Amino acid sequence: MSFADLEALGRKLESIEHAIAILSADEATNMPVGGGEKRAESVSFLHGLRHETATAPEIGDWIAKAESEDLSEEQQLALREFKRVYTNATCLPADFVRRKSQAEMRSEQLWRDLRAKNDWANFAPALEGVVALAREEAQMRADALGLAPYDALMEQFDPGNRVADVAPVLEKLKSFLIDFVPEALEAQARRHEARPPKTVKGPFAIEKQRELGLSMMQALGFDFTHGRLDVSHHPFCGGVPTDVRMTTRYRTDEFLTSLMGVLHETGHALYEQGLPKALSHMAVGQARGMAMHESQSLFVEQQLAHAPRFWEWAMPIVATHLGEGALASWDVEDVVAEVNKVERGYIRVDADEVTYPLHIILRFELEQALIGGTLEVTDVPEAWDAKMTEYLGLSTIDNPKDGPMQDVHWSAGLFGYFPSYTLGALIAAQQWQSIEKAMPNVLDQIAAGDFSGVNAWRAENIWQQASRYSTPDLLKRATGETLNPDIFIAHLKKRYG
Amino acid sequence: MSFADLEALGRKLESIEHAIAILSADEATNMPVGGGEKRAESVSFLHGLRHETATAPEIGDWIAKAESEDLSEEQQLALREFKRVYTNATCLPADFVRRKSQAEMRSEQLWRDLRAKNDWANFAPALEGVVALAREEAQMRADALGLAPYDALMEQFDPGNRVADVAPVLEKLKSFLIDFVPEALEAQARRHEARPPKTVKGPFAIEKQRELGLSMMQALGFDFTHGRLDVSHHPFCGGVPTDVRMTTRYRTDEFLTSLMGVLHETGHALYEQGLPKALSHMAVGQARGMAMHESQSLFVEQQLAHAPRFWEWAMPIVATHLGEGALASWDVEDVVAEVNKVERGYIRVDADEVTYPLHIILRFELEQALIGGTLEVTDVPEAWDAKMTEYLGLSTIDNPKDGPMQDVHWSAGLFGYFPSYTLGALIAAQQWQSIEKAMPNVLDQIAAGDFSGVNAWRAENIWQQASRYSTPDLLKRATGETLNPDIFIAHLKKRYG
Repeated sequence: MSFADLEALGRKLESIEHAIAILSADEATNMPVGGGEKRAESVSFLHGLRHETATAPEIGDWIAKAESEDLSEEQQLALREFKRVYTNATCLPADFVRRKSQAEMRSEQLWRDLRAKNDWANFAPALEGVVALAREEAQMRADALGLAPYDALMEQFDPGNRVADVAPVLEKLKSFLIDFVPEALEAQARRHEARPPKTVKGPFAIEKQRELGLSMMQALGFDFTHGRLDVSHHPFCGGVPTDVRMTTRYRTDEFLTSLMGVLHETGHALYEQGLPKALSHMAVGQARGMAMHESQSLFVEQQLAHAPRFWEWAMPIVATHLGEGALASWDVEDVVAEVNKVERGYIRVDADEVTYPLHIILRFELEQALIGGTLEVTDVPEAWDAKMTEYLGLSTIDNPKDGPMQDVHWSAGLFGYFPSYTLGALIAAQQWQSIEKAMPNVLDQIAAGDFSGVNAWRAENIWQQASRYSTPDLLKRATGETLNPDIFIAHLKKRYG
Repeated sequence: MSFADLEALGRKLESIEHAIAILSADEATNMPVGGGEKRAESVSFLHGLRHETATAPEIGDWIAKAESEDLSEEQQLALREFKRVYTNATCLPADFVRRKSQAEMRSEQLWRDLRAKNDWANFAPALEGVVALAREEAQMRADALGLAPYDALMEQFDPGNRVADVAPVLEKLKSFLIDFVPEALEAQARRHEARPPKTVKGPFAIEKQRELGLSMMQALGFDFTHGRLDVSHHPFCGGVPTDVRMTTRYRTDEFLTSLMGVLHETGHALYEQGLPKALSHMAVGQARGMAMHESQSLFVEQQLAHAPRFWEWAMPIVATHLGEGALASWDVEDVVAEVNKVERGYIRVDADEVTYPLHIILRFELEQALIGGTLEVTDVPEAWDAKMTEYLGLSTIDNPKDGPMQDVHWSAGLFGYFPSYTLGALIAAQQWQSIEKAMPNVLDQIAAGDFSGVNAWRAENIWQQASRYSTPDLLKRATGETLNPDIFIAHLKKRYG
């Protein structure tokens, strides 16, 4: 039976991906510096083996044959997702993939060097090469999938997301935020006047911060028999669903940044740990995509851990691990004001919940124009500056380092990926609304440190659904409606207005 | 060029082995318990891939063609070793390997269960199956290699080791030890009377013990840019030469056991780190074999760290990390008496330097008889008891748990492996003698914590030679003579007489 062949292939791929995931986590957390060269050789070999195994020509025949086999509904969903992944993985010629990967590597190397030097002029030609290939790629993907070019790029990260649906949502959000950011800043200034911001009193021992993080992970439902927390330079959530490797980093002068990072990654980890175990070898059993994954981390970070009721429970936990002095003289309002600070800034990754979407919308607009051919790389700095000035009142024209050179994504050929971040924030808010409707006392549960209710809802409606449905279908099945920007807007108004 | 094909294959194998080694080390040191099932699937897949890759039929053709290519002397040595490994890996039919592996797995499972129950009767039939297959295997290996059956088994672990050479050496050692053990015990009793044994005063914090171990590893030449020390239930030295993963375990009531374990594994680690880097993808660039590997760990543990001059340097290091109280009122003589304690016992892994070889010789004799068909499994308990009684004055007849059931090796099909342990001890002593001749002031260096001299000698004569020569040839090139039991005997007389 060809479906059985696909399952056997899935198990092989799972074993290879397991090795890559653990070797990569080990590299970031444990590997001594001199181990890097041979590790890179091994991981690169495994990536090649993975690609070769996943794109073998006979798989196409198995899929075709399996389509006429007598399959259960679950098997049909698995087959559909297998086919989707296979089509996405095989629609570019091998020679093109090589050229693309070389151009991206070159652009990334230049980016690392030239960003620090604020040198756009010497970086632009490399990025132009990447954009030219991204246009070709979008067209090839579009032809293979029967989609518009930019939709075909988004399809890699969030199956089912289309510009026709996403653009109006983000447009509405943009219009709102351009007016709302100044209002939120004024409201914040008034609050700060009434209640001056506090500062934490360090130093905070790393071991104590680690224990605090572990204790909150535990309370939030992280399963330590299937995962662990380590330290790395860049925090991540990696590993595999049965062995999730989460990391954070610590500074001793304050603890909230690391703790919020831990809570964010815990959101990712809960999704991975909550996936259906029996389907882990099939694409249909894996997490749905970038936006949905980000919605799970932002749900924990923004919807739960930035909310006042969360801190009714969390403040004593902080005191238990870091001592009463850590937040001495703070009350819940002070913590909430601190974690929800709003500030206009140049840098996306440093942005807060309110201004972040404007950074994303800027990129979403520019990269559609780049892929569509209505914008050239050479004109990006002006276009970036114009939008930053319009959206956030900040000019980047003399500072490409903090403008279009701040992210590695485009150099890495990641077009169609940026929207996922903000879609994740919207989805998180929409999930929270559904949970509040389903469980009117959910805030009391959270204030009591009981996350079993929110977890049960997400397990049933998101985690266990894995990749059975497209991103929009999954959202609609979970929350009863399509992506609705009004929910996130209402959330921002309530929190920051 | 076929030699180039073999090198490319070697790089592929190195990448697969790298993944297996790091995944295995991670499993023992970091993996949460629930990660085990999927980890086993991944590692088992990689083992299968490794075997398939290493034994592909075209390799035989490449080797044959490469033999007529114009190769440098280094390449010829590499080709010879490649062929040796390939021949050893391909001389058993796949179906036989499967049967063997099933029988061994069954015997190991029974062993784990029945050893605790002291139940030989129910274990024996499974072991009989393994022995029957081991006899077949020895014959097939013998035919393929043109060796006697037991020699063909030893060849897997120590290329070039033959019963004709090893048996007289161990016979001489046995004759000596049967008389010497009682003498050493009497001498020890006299020393204890004159100077009663001391006990260490714990508790010793694990973090402090770890720092002590790290500091000694550093002094002994362990390269922390290419390795690290972790904790595991069973100490090991794993990983790869560019990323050596060493482990120990700690108890807080005393520290010498863990420290000696660290020093032992450091010996293994130095060998791996000292191998020629440019040849790491070829069999010729890997460590020579089990006896030579054990000689490197025993060199550090027994020849260096059990010697009085070592402790002139080491005692202040212990005090630095564990406090002056750790060995308060001890002097060098006390430490040396403690680490060199001699005691008759049933259990090989608990045995000391003097009695250990008798445990090995017993097994060497019994397994030759088992493979040769002059002993049957059913008669092993009596044979074991007779030899234990003769060699160490201890009867095991009513206690198979501490007799022939104490080791997993035979269940695992490891015949021809046991001698390596004691050959390692002899080789270590022989190396030490050569070093002392070459560097008359070496003991002063060691008493000053300077191991650069011993390391330089071993790097040149052992580590950098990798697998260029057979075990006996490597020893002869390094020390100027074949394996000479008199050196180890003299060492024991000097230390314990």
